Formats: sequence, structure tokens, C-alpha cells
Amino acid sequence: MGIEIINTGSELMIGRVLNTHSQWLCAQLDSLGYTVSRQVTVNDDGTSIVNAVKEALSRSEMVLVTGGLGPTTDDLTRPLIARLFGRRLLTDGSTLERIRGFFAKRGTSVPFHCEIQAQYPEGALIIPNDYGTAPGLLIELEQNPFRSKIGKAVLILLPGPPRELRPMFTERVIPLLREKMPPAENYVSLTLKTACTGESTIERQVAPALEELVRQGLEIGYCARVGEVELRLSAHGSQAQQIVDQAETISRAALGEIIFGTGSDKLEQTVVHLLSERHQTLSTAESCTGGFIAHRITNVPGASEIFMGSCVTYSNKAKINLLGVRPETLNQYGAVSEQTACEMAEGLRRRMNTDYAVSATGIAGPGGGTPEKPVGTVYIGLSTAQKTEARKQVYNYDREAFKTAVSQFALDWIRRTILTLPQ
Amino acid sequence: MGIEIINTGSELMIGRVLNTHSQWLCAQLDSLGYTVSRQVTVNDDGTSIVNAVKEALSRSEMVLVTGGLGPTTDDLTRPLIARLFGRRLLTDGSTLERIRGFFAKRGTSVPFHCEIQAQYPEGALIIPNDYGTAPGLLIELEQNPFRSKIGKAVLILLPGPPRELRPMFTERVIPLLREKMPPAENYVSLTLKTACTGESTIERQVAPALEELVRQGLEIGYCARVGEVELRLSAHGSQAQQIVDQAETISRAALGEIIFGTGSDKLEQTVVHLLSERHQTLSTAESCTGGFIAHRITNVPGASEIFMGSCVTYSNKAKINLLGVRPETLNQYGAVSEQTACEMAEGLRRRMNTDYAVSATGIAGPGGGTPEKPVGTVYIGLSTAQKTEARKQVYNYDREAFKTAVSQFALDWIRRTILTLPQ
Repeated sequence: MGIEIINTGSELMIGRVLNTHSQWLCAQLDSLGYTVSRQVTVNDDGTSIVNAVKEALSRSEMVLVTGGLGPTTDDLTRPLIARLFGRRLLTDGSTLERIRGFFAKRGTSVPFHCEIQAQYPEGALIIPNDYGTAPGLLIELEQNPFRSKIGKAVLILLPGPPRELRPMFTERVIPLLREKMPPAENYVSLTLKTACTGESTIERQVAPALEELVRQGLEIGYCARVGEVELRLSAHGSQAQQIVDQAETISRAALGEIIFGTGSDKLEQTVVHLLSERHQTLSTAESCTGGFIAHRITNVPGASEIFMGSCVTYSNKAKINLLGVRPETLNQYGAVSEQTACEMAEGLRRRMNTDYAVSATGIAGPGGGTPEKPVGTVYIGLSTAQKTEARKQVYNYDREAFKTAVSQFALDWIRRTILTLPQ
Repeated sequence: MGIEIINTGSELMIGRVLNTHSQWLCAQLDSLGYTVSRQVTVNDDGTSIVNAVKEALSRSEMVLVTGGLGPTTDDLTRPLIARLFGRRLLTDGSTLERIRGFFAKRGTSVPFHCEIQAQYPEGALIIPNDYGTAPGLLIELEQNPFRSKIGKAVLILLPGPPRELRPMFTERVIPLLREKMPPAENYVSLTLKTACTGESTIERQVAPALEELVRQGLEIGYCARVGEVELRLSAHGSQAQQIVDQAETISRAALGEIIFGTGSDKLEQTVVHLLSERHQTLSTAESCTGGFIAHRITNVPGASEIFMGSCVTYSNKAKINLLGVRPETLNQYGAVSEQTACEMAEGLRRRMNTDYAVSATGIAGPGGGTPEKPVGTVYIGLSTAQKTEARKQVYNYDREAFKTAVSQFALDWIRRTILTLPQ
């Protein structure tokens, strides 16, 4: 028996935005041992949503809906859902309070129509929203009215914005799911995260060693992103834990320090964590990455303990004034060179007085390439009290993927240096 | 009447990959004036596909399926579709030739089972695949067997790989679509992008003024993101262009300079464009945004013309050394204060010698809040040759959304200042 997911949004129906909800929810549910049997996307008007809900309930006992709970007047989801199950539409006082408090904190009055977000079908469980105004709703049906098969059904309505949906799902919905509908059979899944090594290399290193466990039911999955490959090990049944544990041991032996974390760990989290443990500090001197390395590091709570700052030096003048790069170096070797990368890193490390300073100078494109230094060329520098060096890489990606690739290389180089691993 | 899209793939059901087909197809169809009424994603096994097709045909006269035509042995799509319509399963000689030629070119023999890709339900139109081995199929039904409503139906089956699907759709499917089902009527859609104003405020400002046009068939859609709201104006029929044009005029009159762009414009693009036009320059002094403003600006090709650089000053020492913030200011008012924000912006503008310098200093959280300055408090500063000032905002978001909200405010403030609009 599978869960059905309904995503709503007119912007999805005209292809204006990519549906990232489905993938995120499916990955979450899969990791919990649930099967998603169908994903449906419809417009975020009440009628389309209610029709989709009716049809989903005719096939499934657990239906998740995202979106359609916003404050705009075309949003009829709540009243229509209430009518669908013949329930009265009530207003929840505490949600009303939350909504008013949410805007009071901002020093503004509650906007037009926003209070309809406190409405709920009688008997529904209200899932508080700690990151926005629209709460989620859980409606339990003792007998699924749209299914001949005797049995209960659960409908869960969640807000659309990812920054509200995701924490609400993780913190509040998962426990409810487990309670209302425990996963059919034992399922264990582990994701090992690796940086700066290709998918086929990873596969070549682990696949042969895992063959025996695959025969015992191990499932292996690879997911490649820019500068990062996820290795997913999973198994069903009573032996699942044991099989996945053995697979982890074998994979770690095969991949060694290529692995920087597990689950949803991010490389920047690993780096911040390693530096915090050692009470060491970091600064970044960024040209072609335009502050993206600093952005990634400062996304990690607690980064202020270890991150002193960054100089984004797009112009030569800034490289000279802020980082102390010598004009002769820029003239002789150019801004995109090993020498400049080194002087950027060392210059900032001295000025910021940090244990580590990393630098990046390159040609993100689309313009600026030359025969000797084509678009995609980048020099990444790393400076410590012991030594300063730079590495050349060439990444033929669009601007944003280029920044991601460079930042992965830089962060992984810092990680390896902290752990005194070969780079 | 809308088109239904069915995407198939087990990797989609476990969230391993993002479904980019749906967005791409929806955008294509929208631009051709077709409405997509539903997107469904199921496993790529024959049974799931056939069930989804049956249900789609019960609602729609045009159904597009992607995937499920591969050579793998469990692929029963073709025989099951043939049986669904009571047609014989035949093998197409020319497709068989193509498949053999495809592998001959690669100097390999035809892999096991690959020849089943030449099978087709009797009467189906074969859509040749110039980029792979599995052809597409178009099945026309004189009478839709799953719909009480009298009428034809068209089912189109397309290969899954994007590099095969996309050219096949553009080169071969679009002409067929136009022939079999001409767009019901003329369709016009326009998206206006606004910054730093809430969804319900936008609605309150435009909705009343657009009421009359709504009666004439105007459709209004709102899509809210952090610090940004999209207003979509669309209409069908012979008057569509006129209705949308009038709606645009009314909306622009009502929203005025809140609108920063149209379509898929990004606020950072608008800012870079405005500065380039004027040959003016920008620098950013970032504490709580951690380089995110610089990152957004440097994502825009050509940013190097106008962006001189950024100082990400997480520590007080960096604020003093890099930006020239006075220690007394930090001691007296604190790092998160109007005075510090002003000194950060002005200090950097003088050092970088740019026309504009923007600064941000705040408490991103989760830690660091105080009763007077709770988590989410931020001061944004803007310095020009004329004056330097700072504004206080409070954003109760997670770290990344907080950065987005602050960067939206900062970029929009720059935009308004360049255009000498009130902030």
C-alpha cells in the first residue's frame, strides 16, 4: 500500500518552477520505509485539489497534499475539504493568536484575508507552523468514503513554501505518520556522502566488494551532483540492519576518506564542525566564486565561531587593496594564476589572522576566456601557517554550477588539510 | 480542456532524481497555448502506467506519457497498452532496421530485448527517434472508451531520456499536437515580478481594480517566495491579448515601482542591468548575509562590470580592519545596530570607491538573540556619495531564508535608490 502525494500550484502547471517538493518528500518517505505509489500535481484552486484528493483516497489510505493553504481569496481548499467530508468549518483560536503574533513581531497588522488560515474542518488535527502563518491539517477518516475496501484513511494538508513544509514535515509530520501508519516492514537505509570523486569511480571501488550483500538483499543507489556523489545502501526485512551495517563497513574500507559525511550532511557542515572541534579559524578570498564559499559556510549555525570573514575581490584594485596582492604579480601572471591565488590566500590569512585561508580566482564565463586560459579555468589557493599553495582546475559548467564545483574543491581541500589527508 | 502528462520512473518515486520532464513539457505546452490540467508520476512498470493512462483518459482527450518504453525485460508497456485498446501488437520493420543500424554504427550487436522497442499496437502512428532506439507512439481513438462524453482521444507515448524526449517533442510531437488537437483558443499570459511586498498586500492593491477584467475572463495567479511575489495575468480567447494588456496597465498603475521585472527576471539581474546602463559601481559589506548578496550579484553574467567586491565581516575585528568601523561604535551600539550598518556601508564605499555600497548586520540565529535584539533582527545600510542610512527589519526565518529576505531588501533598496524611488 503506497502513499499518494498531491502537489498544488499553478506555477507548476505552466512550467514556471521545478517541482522540488515531490523529490524531497519522496526521498524522505523512502528513507523511512514508505512507498510512494503516485505523485499528482494540479492547480492550486480548491476544486482541482478536492478532485485530486477524492481520486487519491479511492486508491490509497494515506494522502499528502502540499500547498493551497495560502491566504489569497482564490484559496478555497479549507471550506471545500470540510464540505467533502461533511464537516463544519471552524476557526482555531490559538492559530489565530499565532498568526497575529507572527505579524505583531514584524510590527505590521494582519494582512487582508490572512486570518482564514486559522480555519479548519471540524475534528481535524492542527499541525502548528513554526515557520509561517498557515498551519498544516491532519484529517483522520474512520471509514474512507471513497474506497469500497473497509478501512481508515488519513489526509494530511501541508503549506506550500519549502522553508515551511520541510521543517514541519521533519519535526511534526513524521512522528504523526509513524503513529497513524507504521511502515509495512523493517527498512534500513544509509547514505554515505563523498566529495570531488566521480560516480563511476565510486561505483568501481565499491560495487564488486558489495556483490555478496546484494545477493542477500542489499540495494545500492548512486546519486551524482556537482562535486558530490551520494552512495545509498538500503535493505528490507529482518536482516536489513545487519546487511546495511556490513555494507557500510565494506564501503568505508573501499572509499576511505573520500567519505565526508552521512545522510543529509553537507560538506560545509563537516568543515565548520572540524574547525570548531579544533578551535581553528577560516577566512576566504574569493574572486570567481563571488562569495559563494562564504555563503555556504555561513549557512551553518555556529559558523561565527570559526569564520572570520571573506573578501570578494572581483577587481584587481580590490585584490591589491584588500588582500595585498602585488601589482607586479597581477601584471606578470594575470589575475587568474597560481601566483595570484597564492597571494590572495596568504594575504587574507595574515590580515584576518586565521589558521586557514582559501582563495579562488578563475573564469566563470560566459565571457573572459583565452586560448591559454579557457572559460572554466580556476586556481584555488590554500594558505596555512606552514605553507601556501594553489591548484588548477577546469570546470566546464554554467556560472552557478561552476561556483558549486569550485567551492566543493575548496571546502574538501580544507577538510583534507585539517585531517592531514593527502589531497 | 487540458492535457494530462504522465511521467514514469521508479527513480522519481523514491526521490532519487528531480522530475525535470514535467516542468519542461508544461513550459512548452503553455507557450503553445495548451493547458496542462494534471501531472501524474508513477512507477515505470506496465501496470502502473496502464492504470494511470486509463484514469487520465477518463478526464482528458489528450494524454502524454514519458518513459516506460525502454528495452528492460520488465517493460510491458507496449503489450498492455495494445490490450487496453483491444489491438494486436505488431512489429514495425523500419523501426527494427533503425534499431539494428543504431547499434551497427556503434559496432555492437543489438542488446538482449532491445528489439521489443519495434513493437506497436495496431493502428498506432510511429514517431521515429533520431536520438535513441525507442520510437514514440501516437494512438488515436475515434471514441474515448473511458469517457462517457462522446469524442475522440489521443494518447502519445514518448521515450524517457531527456536528450531523446526533448528533440522528439520539439521536432515531431508539436506538429502532430497542432494537427490532432489545435490549441482550443488563443491564450496569453504575463507574469509581473514584485519585491519586498506581501502576497495579500499585492492582492489588496490589484484585485479590486481587476474585478471587471476577471468578469471578462482574466485569470489572476499569485506565487509568493521569500521577499518576492509573482503576479500572473492570463486569459483565453480572441480577446486574451487585449484583456491581459489592460490588466497589465491596471496592475502597473496599482503596484507602480513595486514591480521590478517580468517573466523569469531576477532582482539581481535588474540591479546589475540598471548599474551597467549608468556605468555605476557597487560593493557590499556583509555580516549576517555571509556573502549571499555578492553571490547573487555575481551569478549575473557581466556583473564584473559593475561589482567591485564585497567584504564579509563576521567578526568585529574584520569590521574594524576591513571596513574601518570605529571600535567605539561597536562598543557603544553593538555590531547589530544602525550606526554599525552605516559605518560598514560608508567605510566600504570609500575603500572600494564605488557609487553604492550596501551593508547588512543582524542576528540570523538560531543563537545570538537578546530581548532588545531578538533573532531575526537586521540592520541594512546603504551608502552613496549623497548620504548614508540604515533600516531595521525583523525576519523570523531559518538562516537561508533570512539571508534571502535580507538580500531582497538590500537589492530592492539599491534598485529604488538608482531609480530615485521612495523606499
